Amino acid sequence: MTVALVGAGPGDPDLLTVRAARLLAAAEVVVHDALVGDGVLALASPGAELIDVGKRPGRPVPQELISTLLVDLARTGRRVVRLKGGDPYVFGRGGEEAQALLDAGVAFEVVPGITSAVAAPAAAGIPVTHRGVSAAVTVVTGHRRRGEPDVDWRALANVGGTIVVLMGVAQRATIAHELLAGGLAPSTPVAAVRSATTPDQLVARCRLDEVATTPIEAPAVIVIGAVAAMGLSGHGVARVRGAHDDMEAPHDARAAVDG
Amino acid sequence: MTVALVGAGPGDPDLLTVRAARLLAAAEVVVHDALVGDGVLALASPGAELIDVGKRPGRPVPQELISTLLVDLARTGRRVVRLKGGDPYVFGRGGEEAQALLDAGVAFEVVPGITSAVAAPAAAGIPVTHRGVSAAVTVVTGHRRRGEPDVDWRALANVGGTIVVLMGVAQRATIAHELLAGGLAPSTPVAAVRSATTPDQLVARCRLDEVATTPIEAPAVIVIGAVAAMGLSGHGVARVRGAHDDMEAPHDARAAVDG
Repeated sequence: MTVALVGAGPGDPDLLTVRAARLLAAAEVVVHDALVGDGVLALASPGAELIDVGKRPGRPVPQELISTLLVDLARTGRRVVRLKGGDPYVFGRGGEEAQALLDAGVAFEVVPGITSAVAAPAAAGIPVTHRGVSAAVTVVTGHRRRGEPDVDWRALANVGGTIVVLMGVAQRATIAHELLAGGLAPSTPVAAVRSATTPDQLVARCRLDEVATTPIEAPAVIVIGAVAAMGLSGHGVARVRGAHDDMEAPHDARAAVDG
Repeated sequence: MTVALVGAGPGDPDLLTVRAARLLAAAEVVVHDALVGDGVLALASPGAELIDVGKRPGRPVPQELISTLLVDLARTGRRVVRLKGGDPYVFGRGGEEAQALLDAGVAFEVVPGITSAVAAPAAAGIPVTHRGVSAAVTVVTGHRRRGEPDVDWRALANVGGTIVVLMGVAQRATIAHELLAGGLAPSTPVAAVRSATTPDQLVARCRLDEVATTPIEAPAVIVIGAVAAMGLSGHGVARVRGAHDDMEAPHDARAAVDG
């Protein structure tokens, strides 16, 4: 009677961990989010039941129901994998599910995943920290839920490191406004990465004061700070490759992430 | 002529990515840091040359030499894997190596790894974000190098999320002082995790105002914030398991990380 809370990583099935791939291959039930791609799900045991509890707009599955489902499935004695995009503990609400399992007396294992907060910028050639440029990185969600503690964006503007916003596309105008009010320069570089590490990857770049008017389609990872001007790779590729790709020059790389 | 900059993850070989394991198995040369454990190195091709460029105290290998080595090795035509603890772009100086390869016209690939900034807390039962508790996580290094931009710890104290300090054991008194001066409560929970995800894992817990006097042996990941009081698992285990482990209660879990 065990549930594995497993991070599926940013999209590319090769970025699953060895442990995650092994658990998926042995799973009897896989409970997954909408953000987990087909390439990853294809690694599940052919006989496994796949249950999509993705919180799509208009069809939200309450978190409490997901936790109850996991407990009920575990009690059937089947090998249950709860597969979450990125890492279970980086805005994955994995802590709530772990707590529910703990409360119900169900043993569980947490398998970290590659968070898109780091991998999406990397796939666009952006190191979230870089010597002489950024010595800190803050990962924050733009999506505020009820009961969620506030983040002081103006304080964040003064920390001096990279800011990575997950689920922030809809709130980007407000976020940019707060960061500018907190003292970040209007010319602060911004990059938005959609469908990172997949063949559909798209990168948009702009200045902080242009974020509100730059078309960006969700879901995207938004990187704010000096590193966002870097491009240690080509773009539009599943993995970061070097000199033989066409480089994306910051000044002409304003192509919108609009599909 | 390609170099793969590969994240080795936090320690447990099962937390390598599928891609990393495959590249290691096919490598002809592996250039690795001191923090990469034997379990991970054992996955390298038996014929691969292993080169340790770990920056141990008293025997530092200058970053420039490492970059030059990578370029030279790539030009021999061998399959080179540059293996770095955690993720190459989270304080891994991977950006500098990527830049050097780019400048030298050497193609490269970056393979993200599980950062210990997230996995070490998780292995101690601590989700770095948690609904109602923390809606942001800042990862920062306590180890300041020359030319490194400053982090404003007092501003960081006001952001309102979790703070994860890497390489901060030696500087922990100063860091705690700055965070207290910035307004963080003296009772703010702190956890230090050493050798995370390995059989040697140790966890120490204390309050922020006790950090300076709590024995903590480097290297350790230090978590500061309300989530650091959580324990969604036992401790001293390679992976996070649930109800059947002895729980570590915050009030009696002051065992020092001192080996």
